Amino acid sequence: MPTHGADAAQPGTDQIITPEHRRYDAADISWFIRSAYVALGVPEADAATVAGLMVQADLLGYDTHGSFRLRQYINRLRDGGTNTVAKLSLASEASASAVVDGDNGLGHLAMLRATDLAIEKARDNGVGWVGVRNGNHAGPASLYVNRVAEQDMIGIVAAVGSANHVAPFGGMDLLLGTNPLAIAVPAGEAPVFVLDMATTTAAAGKIKVLAQRGETMPEGWMVDREGNPLTDPNRQSEGLMLPIGGAKGYGLAMAIGLIAGTLNGAAFGKDVVSFSKDTTSATNTGQFVAAISIKAFGDVDAFKATVDGIFATMRQSTPLPGRGAVRIPGQERQALLLERRANGIPLHPNLVKALSQIAHELKIPELA
Amino acid sequence: MPTHGADAAQPGTDQIITPEHRRYDAADISWFIRSAYVALGVPEADAATVAGLMVQADLLGYDTHGSFRLRQYINRLRDGGTNTVAKLSLASEASASAVVDGDNGLGHLAMLRATDLAIEKARDNGVGWVGVRNGNHAGPASLYVNRVAEQDMIGIVAAVGSANHVAPFGGMDLLLGTNPLAIAVPAGEAPVFVLDMATTTAAAGKIKVLAQRGETMPEGWMVDREGNPLTDPNRQSEGLMLPIGGAKGYGLAMAIGLIAGTLNGAAFGKDVVSFSKDTTSATNTGQFVAAISIKAFGDVDAFKATVDGIFATMRQSTPLPGRGAVRIPGQERQALLLERRANGIPLHPNLVKALSQIAHELKIPELA
Repeated sequence: MPTHGADAAQPGTDQIITPEHRRYDAADISWFIRSAYVALGVPEADAATVAGLMVQADLLGYDTHGSFRLRQYINRLRDGGTNTVAKLSLASEASASAVVDGDNGLGHLAMLRATDLAIEKARDNGVGWVGVRNGNHAGPASLYVNRVAEQDMIGIVAAVGSANHVAPFGGMDLLLGTNPLAIAVPAGEAPVFVLDMATTTAAAGKIKVLAQRGETMPEGWMVDREGNPLTDPNRQSEGLMLPIGGAKGYGLAMAIGLIAGTLNGAAFGKDVVSFSKDTTSATNTGQFVAAISIKAFGDVDAFKATVDGIFATMRQSTPLPGRGAVRIPGQERQALLLERRANGIPLHPNLVKALSQIAHELKIPELA
Repeated sequence: MPTHGADAAQPGTDQIITPEHRRYDAADISWFIRSAYVALGVPEADAATVAGLMVQADLLGYDTHGSFRLRQYINRLRDGGTNTVAKLSLASEASASAVVDGDNGLGHLAMLRATDLAIEKARDNGVGWVGVRNGNHAGPASLYVNRVAEQDMIGIVAAVGSANHVAPFGGMDLLLGTNPLAIAVPAGEAPVFVLDMATTTAAAGKIKVLAQRGETMPEGWMVDREGNPLTDPNRQSEGLMLPIGGAKGYGLAMAIGLIAGTLNGAAFGKDVVSFSKDTTSATNTGQFVAAISIKAFGDVDAFKATVDGIFATMRQSTPLPGRGAVRIPGQERQALLLERRANGIPLHPNLVKALSQIAHELKIPELA
C-alpha cells in the first residue's frame, strides 16, 4: 500500500482508491445515514437533509468530510454534545446580513439555512453575508459555495476549525484551527471553479484518513514541540500543524477565526471545543456564508464567457518540465460526481467496518 | 550592508533602517508629492488626497508602497498611461454593492471612493461590497481596510496585482499577479488587527527594494523557468514568483483575480498590463472593498472586549524554543506611525536620489 496517499490522491478526490475499496450506491449510503440519525431522535426531515449533504460530499470526492464523519456526529448526538432536535433562529438581521443560531444541532442544518438566506439577501441587495453561531462541523465548505454558485453568484464560506491543531506563528500553544476557506465562481461551459482549502499545509481530515489507513504523513505537514518533523498521523495530538506561508497562513487563520467565530458570537481561540474528543460539550462552532450576485455587477453571460476564456488560457499554458497540464481548482469534481453516481461511492474497508459498528449500536439495518 | 533586508525587517516595517537613511517630515514629503502631481496637471484636491495616502503608507511602514512608488506613478501620468484628470462614476449599484469606475486616474482616488461607499452601504445594510474597474495601483491595501476599521467595521480588500509575476500551479506562463489580500479587524484597547499579504511567498515591492539596495533574495521567493532557485532581484523578470502553499496560493490568487478583476469588468490573466514597464496603456486594474458592520452582528463593545482577550491569549502563549513573543499581524504599525510622525520618515539614499530627479524633471522645489 502506498504511503502519503492523501497527498498523491487522484485528481478530484482526497484519497487513492484501491482494490480494497468497495462501492456503494449513493442512495443506499444516504438511507443508512438517515436511519442512524432517526434512530437517535433526529427529526425525519433534518436527518434526510444532513444525509443528503454528507453523500453529496462523498460524490464530489471530499472523502474525509462525508460519510467518514458519521462516527463523530453519532457519538456527539448519542452523548448529548449535539442536540438531536434543533430549533434554528436568527440572532440578528439587517437587509444584507444576518446571524443564524444553529441551536447546537447538526452543523449542516445551520449552514444550509445560512446559505439560502445569503442567496436571498444577495438577490435583493447585490451581496448577502450570513454568519452562524451555535453551529457544528458541517462537512466540506464546498457544499455551500457550490449551492451559491448554482444561483449565478460567487460564494465564499469560512469556518472556525472544529479543534485547535495550530499554534500562533512563533508559538507552541494550540490556539487555532485549520480554519478553512472556500470560494466558488460559476463559469459558462467550463465546470464551476471551487477552491476549498485549509489554512494549514494539510487538512485535519487527511491526517485522520492516513491514521485510519496506517500510512505516514509527508514532512511539512506537522512538527513536534521542538520544531522537528512529525510524520506519524497517530501522534497528531503531540504536534503542531503548520500554516501555509508561515506568518501569512497564521494571519489568515486569525482573520477567519475573528470573522467566522467572534463576530457571530461563536467560539474562537482557547474556547474552541475539540469536536471529536469531547462528545458532551456544545462546540458553539462559527461559520459564515457570503453570496455576491454577479447580476448586480454586470451582465452574467458576459462574465461567464470571460471566465471560460481565463480558464482556457490557464489550462493551455505551458507546463513546467515534467508536469501535466495546468488544472483549475475543483473542476475535476463534477466529472467525479457523475462517475460516482453511475458506479457507486468507493468506501475504504475501515470505514465500512465503522458503519457496520454503528448499525449494531443503533439496531438499524447494515449498509449493503 | 546586510542581505535579505526585507525578510529580516524590524517589526512593523518592510526594511531595515540603516545610518544611510535620512529622515524627512511627513508633511514635507506630502507637499513634495502633491507638487509633483500638480505640475503634471492633476487637480489640487486629488493631488493632496493621493499624497496624503502615500505618506500614510510611509508612516505605517509600508515602505515599498508609499513615496517609493512616486517614480512609477509620475512616469505613467507623464506618458499618458494614467489620466491626470479622472472623473469617477458608478458602473453599477445595488443597495449593498456597487462598482466604481476609476476613469484610469491615480488608483488611490477610486479606492478611497470605493471604501467610503462600502462603509456607507454597510451602515445601512450590515455589509457593503464595492468593486473598482479602470483603477490603478493604489498603494497598500491596508490603507483602505484601516479606514473601514476606524468605523467599527471589519474591512476586506483585495486587488489584481499590477503585473503578472506568477504562473498557474504546475505551469510556467506568467498569468497571475501577487494578488494581495488585506483584512482589518478593530479591537478595544489593543491596536487594530491588520493582515496585508501577497498570495506569493514574497511581495513584488520587497523584491524591488532589494534590487534598489543591491541585496539578494532568500531562496523560496522565486524560481527560474527550470524550477531552480533565483536569488538575484535584478533577474526578477526571468523567473516565477512562488505562491504560498503551492496549489492553495494559486487557487487564492485565481479567486481574487476573478472577484477583484473579472467580476468588476477589470483585467485579469493575460490582459493584465505591467504597471511599471508599460507607461502608456490603461491597466484597467480591479480591486474590491468589503465592509462588515459589527453593530449589525451584535454589541460592538462586547465584540471588542472579546477580541482584546483573544489577542492577549495569543501574545501570552509560549514561544517556540529560541523565539520571541508571539505577535498579532499589523499591531506594531500603530506605534511606528507615532514614532515616524515624531521623528520623520526614514528614506533610503536611492529613493532620495529618485525624488530629486523628479524635482529636476518637473521643475519643482527639491524635498528638503
